[in-house]
Amino acid sequence: MARRYEHVSLLTDYGTADEFVGVVHAVIADIAPHARITDLTHGIAPFDVRAGSLALVRSIGYVPEGVVVAVVDPGVGTERRAVAIEVGDGAGILVGPDNGLLAPAVALAGGAGRAVVLDDPSFHLETPGATFAGRDIFAPAAAHLCNGVDLAELGSAVDPAALMPGTIPLPRHEGDEVIAEVLWVDRFGNCQINLGSEELPPGWGTVLTLRLDDPTLATGSVRRSVRRCSTFGEIGGGIGLVADSHGLFAVCLDRGSAAAELGIGEGDQVVLTDGYGADPVTVPVELGRG
Amino acid sequence: MARRYEHVSLLTDYGTADEFVGVVHAVIADIAPHARITDLTHGIAPFDVRAGSLALVRSIGYVPEGVVVAVVDPGVGTERRAVAIEVGDGAGILVGPDNGLLAPAVALAGGAGRAVVLDDPSFHLETPGATFAGRDIFAPAAAHLCNGVDLAELGSAVDPAALMPGTIPLPRHEGDEVIAEVLWVDRFGNCQINLGSEELPPGWGTVLTLRLDDPTLATGSVRRSVRRCSTFGEIGGGIGLVADSHGLFAVCLDRGSAAAELGIGEGDQVVLTDGYGADPVTVPVELGRG
Amino acid sequence: MARRYEHVSLLTDYGTADEFVGVVHAVIADIAPHARITDLTHGIAPFDVRAGSLALVRSIGYVPEGVVVAVVDPGVGTERRAVAIEVGDGAGILVGPDNGLLAPAVALAGGAGRAVVLDDPSFHLETPGATFAGRDIFAPAAAHLCNGVDLAELGSAVDPAALMPGTIPLPRHEGDEVIAEVLWVDRFGNCQINLGSEELPPGWGTVLTLRLDDPTLATGSVRRSVRRCSTFGEIGGGIGLVADSHGLFAVCLDRGSAAAELGIGEGDQVVLTDGYGADPVTVPVELGRG
Repeated sequence: MARRYEHVSLLTDYGTADEFVGVVHAVIADIAPHARITDLTHGIAPFDVRAGSLALVRSIGYVPEGVVVAVVDPGVGTERRAVAIEVGDGAGILVGPDNGLLAPAVALAGGAGRAVVLDDPSFHLETPGATFAGRDIFAPAAAHLCNGVDLAELGSAVDPAALMPGTIPLPRHEGDEVIAEVLWVDRFGNCQINLGSEELPPGWGTVLTLRLDDPTLATGSVRRSVRRCSTFGEIGGGIGLVADSHGLFAVCLDRGSAAAELGIGEGDQVVLTDGYGADPVTVPVELGRG
Repeated sequence: MARRYEHVSLLTDYGTADEFVGVVHAVIADIAPHARITDLTHGIAPFDVRAGSLALVRSIGYVPEGVVVAVVDPGVGTERRAVAIEVGDGAGILVGPDNGLLAPAVALAGGAGRAVVLDDPSFHLETPGATFAGRDIFAPAAAHLCNGVDLAELGSAVDPAALMPGTIPLPRHEGDEVIAEVLWVDRFGNCQINLGSEELPPGWGTVLTLRLDDPTLATGSVRRSVRRCSTFGEIGGGIGLVADSHGLFAVCLDRGSAAAELGIGEGDQVVLTDGYGADPVTVPVELGRG
Repeated sequence: MARRYEHVSLLTDYGTADEFVGVVHAVIADIAPHARITDLTHGIAPFDVRAGSLALVRSIGYVPEGVVVAVVDPGVGTERRAVAIEVGDGAGILVGPDNGLLAPAVALAGGAGRAVVLDDPSFHLETPGATFAGRDIFAPAAAHLCNGVDLAELGSAVDPAALMPGTIPLPRHEGDEVIAEVLWVDRFGNCQINLGSEELPPGWGTVLTLRLDDPTLATGSVRRSVRRCSTFGEIGGGIGLVADSHGLFAVCLDRGSAAAELGIGEGDQVVLTDGYGADPVTVPVELGRG
């Protein structure tokens, strides 16, 4: 007899304006009434597999044992596979499309154990169309797992090494620069970058210079002084590089949006150097602009 | 002794920026702690009874047995009645305003059994004002039903035939045209139309022409070729007519918003004909415009 | 042995675009699987402590016995204290930052009993950064309280009188005017003001004049007739002063947004006088404007 699960965590790009999420809940509650459901978020930007995989990585260490369903799935209904992947010796099972969305979280959870393609239609809902796998394939799979159906019953075994990998960009250290990338802009405008809060070169001070390249400027870039901080409140009136709750640095304002102030977004590059750089009042007048 | 229920499903236009939904949950949890609550959606546009009734119809087949509370209620507090309607021989009870919101879902669930007006104030919360029936009338009614209070105790019986009907537009077949209407634009910009995915005339091919009338154009309309598909991925670079997860057609892009691309919204008319029509590059130059 | 709790209610400015709320749920569910969680709202505007405290006041009378976690916390990680405050002889415990957010709800719930600063790190999650107290301090505190940990175990006792007070503005009666303030603009554009629906001077009629001062106008202000109503439907085509579901007046349109129509928002002043004032058609032509 396979293990039963009590908990399903959900992460999607479904938003909450439509009833997609509610129907997924309803399907799970109908098949597995004992299962508790936690919505991690449904606010991933439509089709943004990378953003979804990062939110899943930020969450995975906190979800209770059980099933995690993640759906950011532009290829729904095509030949991309629907999969379920065991982690932590069966403490958890991740369910979703095989498009790289699950891979970083699987890795963080210690790597894949068994994996299957969800290709047994007897565990799917009957449906007139193939566009809502969350309702018809992923939610029933999660619910049946909660009910004690073994992973192997849900479909054909697949070698975890054959699953689509995910990619998380690494920062680069070049000369006296650290070149990083914005991973996530949160609701408050804090810009998490892919640089661990212990990863700055030894000897760097508490004030750094942040450079944003912008070819539309005559100067080619904007430089701002940033202060290394451990809370937003320490930043004061300028820009801070705050050691965030995930062990990464985030570019932040105190009580304001750094993303709006600096005009940066997810995927943008930021370059850090040690010491004071020009701050806004010393940026040259932009005669060449426009 | 009346039946007890374990599950309350909610659908409203309350949004999530305010605490309306949370207070409805709190009231239900306080009166009927055993009841599980599923939020279908609270993102119906304010006062949009038709959109609410359509979202309810899309959901109703998936909700577990129990009570469904739906509130899109511009007439709250006026002489419009608050009602509860039994369906499926008591498997479900729909609760909400008698303004047409519930009617299509009641019909899809097999039609109304018993119905009552929620006019017994002993089952309402005391309130200083009449503007929040979700909190004061509908949530308590749902919770008391979960606790085993019989429908008939909640108020005066009413003939289901006297309830406000709902309306769902039907497509028309005129000559070689099929004239349909956009029912729903989802988060991804897919435009569901009121045409079943088995309802195209026999003999029509896989490429159709979609016409959007627009009197502000010199041409009077825009024509686009559309490909019949069963997944978004099959569409390719153009526009697809995808058989969706509700058995209707939806006008879609692959990884993009058809609503934005075509400038269409809920309630707009779309006209389909068989075969190739003009695509964007062959639309006449709009000399007459403006 | 301390009391156990079954219910945690949450109110934050976290929004739902990110996974903040989901992770808070996950932490609570992991530590206290028996606890039910109700989301009051997570749509408080970022950093808006006043708006959060008002939403909490509007909700507190409806939440089931148990723990309430409220987080609008621009000072997270700084010397502002994290606190837990008992109310109702232990029927409820409010958990959050000591920045005035909790104070009005504590007062409405009958005042504070015991209070502690959440300074015992053995009840916090280990964390690499101090920016997410909801996850690392408040959620675990709530869950441990649910599990029967006594309030006093969570940290140092603090005199409730030493907690940060909250402020709610009072209306003023000056001459023949009542000067009030917009407390809350809800999703529908209804503008709740800080004037009880029984607080108008005796003898005032059913038609009042509402004045909005606007120094950018030549007239210095805009005057509109408003009708006292008990439902939106009674308003008709103009503007109503509706006795709302909290016992306060709200400035409203029927099926439309009063906030948009009048250009007013939270914190704006509105002045009421008895009787007819000028309505839009009699506002002088604004020759002096611009």
